Amino acid sequence: MIRQAVIMAGGLGSRLKEKTTVRPKGALEIAGVPMVERSIQKLSAAGIEEIIIGTGHGKEWYEDCAARYPGITLVHNRRYAETGSMGTLACCAPAVRGDVLLLESDLIYDAIGLTVLINDTHPNVLLASGPTGSGDEVYLEADEGGYLVRHSKNRAALGSSAGELVGITRLQKETLERMCAYMQGRLGDDPRMDYETALSAVSAAGPDKVYIRAIQHYLWREIDTAADLAAAETVVYPRIAEAESLRRIQREVLLNPGPATTTDSVKYAQVCADICPRETAFGEVMAWICAELSGMAGKPGRVETVLFGGSGTAADEVMVSSCVPDTGRLLVVDNGAYGARLAEIASVYKLNYEVYTSSGSAPLDTEAVKAKLMEGRFTHCALVYHETTTGLLNPVPELCRFCREQGITTIVDAVSAFAAIPIDMDEDGIDFMASTSNKNLQGMAGVALVFCRKEALERIHGYPLRNYYLNLWDQYRHFKQTRQTRFTPPVQTLYALRQAIIETKQETIAKRYARYAACWDELVTAVKRLNLTMLVPEAVQSKLITAILDPPFPGYRFDTLHDRARSYGFTIYPGKLADANTFRIANIGDIQPAEMARFTQVLEAYIRELEQSSVNPQRAGE
Amino acid sequence: MIRQAVIMAGGLGSRLKEKTTVRPKGALEIAGVPMVERSIQKLSAAGIEEIIIGTGHGKEWYEDCAARYPGITLVHNRRYAETGSMGTLACCAPAVRGDVLLLESDLIYDAIGLTVLINDTHPNVLLASGPTGSGDEVYLEADEGGYLVRHSKNRAALGSSAGELVGITRLQKETLERMCAYMQGRLGDDPRMDYETALSAVSAAGPDKVYIRAIQHYLWREIDTAADLAAAETVVYPRIAEAESLRRIQREVLLNPGPATTTDSVKYAQVCADICPRETAFGEVMAWICAELSGMAGKPGRVETVLFGGSGTAADEVMVSSCVPDTGRLLVVDNGAYGARLAEIASVYKLNYEVYTSSGSAPLDTEAVKAKLMEGRFTHCALVYHETTTGLLNPVPELCRFCREQGITTIVDAVSAFAAIPIDMDEDGIDFMASTSNKNLQGMAGVALVFCRKEALERIHGYPLRNYYLNLWDQYRHFKQTRQTRFTPPVQTLYALRQAIIETKQETIAKRYARYAACWDELVTAVKRLNLTMLVPEAVQSKLITAILDPPFPGYRFDTLHDRARSYGFTIYPGKLADANTFRIANIGDIQPAEMARFTQVLEAYIRELEQSSVNPQRAGE
Repeated sequence: MIRQAVIMAGGLGSRLKEKTTVRPKGALEIAGVPMVERSIQKLSAAGIEEIIIGTGHGKEWYEDCAARYPGITLVHNRRYAETGSMGTLACCAPAVRGDVLLLESDLIYDAIGLTVLINDTHPNVLLASGPTGSGDEVYLEADEGGYLVRHSKNRAALGSSAGELVGITRLQKETLERMCAYMQGRLGDDPRMDYETALSAVSAAGPDKVYIRAIQHYLWREIDTAADLAAAETVVYPRIAEAESLRRIQREVLLNPGPATTTDSVKYAQVCADICPRETAFGEVMAWICAELSGMAGKPGRVETVLFGGSGTAADEVMVSSCVPDTGRLLVVDNGAYGARLAEIASVYKLNYEVYTSSGSAPLDTEAVKAKLMEGRFTHCALVYHETTTGLLNPVPELCRFCREQGITTIVDAVSAFAAIPIDMDEDGIDFMASTSNKNLQGMAGVALVFCRKEALERIHGYPLRNYYLNLWDQYRHFKQTRQTRFTPPVQTLYALRQAIIETKQETIAKRYARYAACWDELVTAVKRLNLTMLVPEAVQSKLITAILDPPFPGYRFDTLHDRARSYGFTIYPGKLADANTFRIANIGDIQPAEMARFTQVLEAYIRELEQSSVNPQRAGE
Repeated sequence: MIRQAVIMAGGLGSRLKEKTTVRPKGALEIAGVPMVERSIQKLSAAGIEEIIIGTGHGKEWYEDCAARYPGITLVHNRRYAETGSMGTLACCAPAVRGDVLLLESDLIYDAIGLTVLINDTHPNVLLASGPTGSGDEVYLEADEGGYLVRHSKNRAALGSSAGELVGITRLQKETLERMCAYMQGRLGDDPRMDYETALSAVSAAGPDKVYIRAIQHYLWREIDTAADLAAAETVVYPRIAEAESLRRIQREVLLNPGPATTTDSVKYAQVCADICPRETAFGEVMAWICAELSGMAGKPGRVETVLFGGSGTAADEVMVSSCVPDTGRLLVVDNGAYGARLAEIASVYKLNYEVYTSSGSAPLDTEAVKAKLMEGRFTHCALVYHETTTGLLNPVPELCRFCREQGITTIVDAVSAFAAIPIDMDEDGIDFMASTSNKNLQGMAGVALVFCRKEALERIHGYPLRNYYLNLWDQYRHFKQTRQTRFTPPVQTLYALRQAIIETKQETIAKRYARYAACWDELVTAVKRLNLTMLVPEAVQSKLITAILDPPFPGYRFDTLHDRARSYGFTIYPGKLADANTFRIANIGDIQPAEMARFTQVLEAYIRELEQSSVNPQRAGE
């Protein structure tokens, strides 16, 4: 697994002087996007968690860039004017922790090159192409095994050419360190050493041989001159854009309350080398996922995340069945289908429990719940943070903090709240919390998540085993001890979750919730314009899911609206309430306000038709 | 979801007469593989379940071909000499059930074209390319919306060219029927009608407009002449091969006992348009999966397959917790870790059960188990078909048939037996059986499978609910009624399972088991040559997993062998037995005997080193 990339961006860009006096070369725009920014997007999409940019000339531009992309680490090469790319690379090397992708900053390239390097089995591998005729080719010479021994801009200086250097390389940390050592030994002779000089030398000397992976028809261009820039804009970039567009997946905007719309990069993250999940490398992936998710649910070191193969309901069942001792007394707050489900689970396990029922369309009476908790001497309280059935947001922090004061353990279904609503389990008084990979995290369905406040988790040790697969303590302890789950985990779904986490961190949860809220604003504006009625008062809505009463026209059919929306690429969802006829629009997932606006047009067209039909009933019909 | 393709292969190939007197044009080889065969492989890899080939000249060749690829349906156009491609297509049309890919037989093409058509949102879409200069171009003219209105071999006859016709099209069934009707109306004027004539006419007339999806730099060639054949062989095919190779995923040969090695096409099947799993279209995918799997476990109509999100152990827990009533008395046969696990589950649920323990390395004493069952008046018997820990095959048919005679319900963990060992639940007397997506089925981890003999399943209705997520009856009934699972299923893992089933059917279970057995032969031959000892007598081995006693050298370390194997791309697995030190080699998954042979070389090299070190201890060391 390659988790880091280094972009060498310390150069002066002297052959493009008039364009690079203020900005560095990587900032030059091709088709409206700075080269480096496109590279950052491609690297993130390829699963790179951290991009280290070695800066020099024009570092201020990179500082702005890093502010927009949280995964970037900047390392400044103070001596950039005197050293070459190897000098910049050496500045970055200490930040590299394992296998790394190494890129020049002034490239445009087909992202498939990253896939090819990631999937190559050689420990060190250099991307090469067939003849480009660019006029500034760096030719490569290989030994009999296909490993780099020499490079030159002068084709005639080489015995044979194994291709042209692209400027994208995959290296082991040790090889990178050997390159740095090589440079140190030759600083006197060659202070402006290029990284490819060190690379050739280290590869030729062994043992860190660098394999040349040549793609004859690779689409790429290095930008050194105004002519390169023009060729990139008019010829190379359009071809890259076409090639990349062929791998794009049909876009469906899911407005159902999860699984949510995912990015193509999350989809493709499922496609990776087969691995036995008991391998150390996969244990590291899971440990990383747990650590990152814990960081989204509380302060560092305060939360443990436990993974299960299953749905959000499986996570609910883990909590209810594992976190209440036989002596416990559980109050379940039910103001929607998911609250009712918590109660059903408690019932199946014959826990000592009671249900506090409240309307699904009105704010929860917090004081009444508190009074009930005290009266009934409850030791545990289970409730839903955000009722997926209605969009109602429960006052979880207020209730759970009260519980903490009273020594009551709290069990919260945050399936559709987590990774949008800001949560800090310590501050909010939440002991156990369930979520899933496929809602606001924008991953694929199949991973159930249980978050545990550390002290609360330690307390459940020794609680009765009420099932086998879904036991929280055993799963937690086994993973702690072995970095393996007890049972085969959904490997590829976890790789997708890893990518979804990378993208969640890129966006940040705050900005994600703001984007969701902007989509919700579009929806609510249209709902009001169309005189439709929302089930839940706006003040207690989550802004994630909206339950709308069925339009008051006799001709209204959910299926008609559904099928029409689907023909435009939108999926909507019926209601799930016994006492009100509703349909639901969710605005979670990789969707944009403009898409929600387009959906509201579909909705509006249908409502207008219904209005017409109810005025002139003879014209009705579907 | 596109499930069918039609290949029009009725043509005479008259411009390649000397090569097509006996064989049809699609049988011509490019780089050693007949064109149509390569097309069949690409279509299967793209998720096509059934390929309908419309034959004419040289149909015998296609009959041979269909014998090798079980997914093929042949439809012969008796009048092929008098009709054109539209005549052949019309013969195939009645076999088409929904959206379909339509291909000419004499094409080589980059498989990405199929991806592009599958991901296009237009109901009908035609693949076009930029200029090929092939000399036999069919130019296309589009209306303002980009839809086909006219085609011609004469560029000047068209107002503008939207690209060249490739010969791959995605059509709705209704559009295909309209093309057939168009032909019927014009049989008198144009008996030799090409399909593109009908396509243009239908598209231009509406409402079934056909969108032209142009890929400027698409790699393809139609083979009409000797010059085409030469160009395909020397220029086009090598470029296609390179482009396709870039999308290949790093190959790791997993010799651990599952998750098993998968094909790239199963990996890529996870990448598809987002869908809400409550949609009818996804319900159909799940229903298809259930029906196909049921067909692998018994005779038509005799078995119900129930899907859960989870691992094989989850499937075991489903059975044990759902299939034994409170009045039941369960005997668990334990001769390995998975038998012990069944007992642990029974213990957690406080069932009335006893354990019959037997050695993990010796055949089960069937008579003793029978006697125990009778003595203890057991109503249920749970056992493991194939002990993943040891490779021991239990005499399940014999024991289960006995149980049936005695009215004892049987619960079988067939996690690593199903889809390799031939199973017929009726014949074998198995009532309930567990497996998973990620072993012999060669799918991805995350789907637990429970197979039920219909009568046995009906009996569990009303049995106590002992958990919520893993209840068999509720999950079964809910899916029967709604074609939805009760809880969010692992959507993408199910798409991968669908592809894995397509590939299992292509290979057939019998041939898959033969391939596995051939891998096992390679292993066992080496084991004997190296004087290693297998834990289980050969006669009762599954030929799927082999437990081998640790090599008798003091320097032996499993981790050393593991890491060395891993560096060659092989993953092996430690033993899991309390009473014997073993390592395990599985030979399931998408692996070949030659790969197992390569692994045995790695094993041999290590054993030889150990032998040397034990002879000359001073030279030992790792």
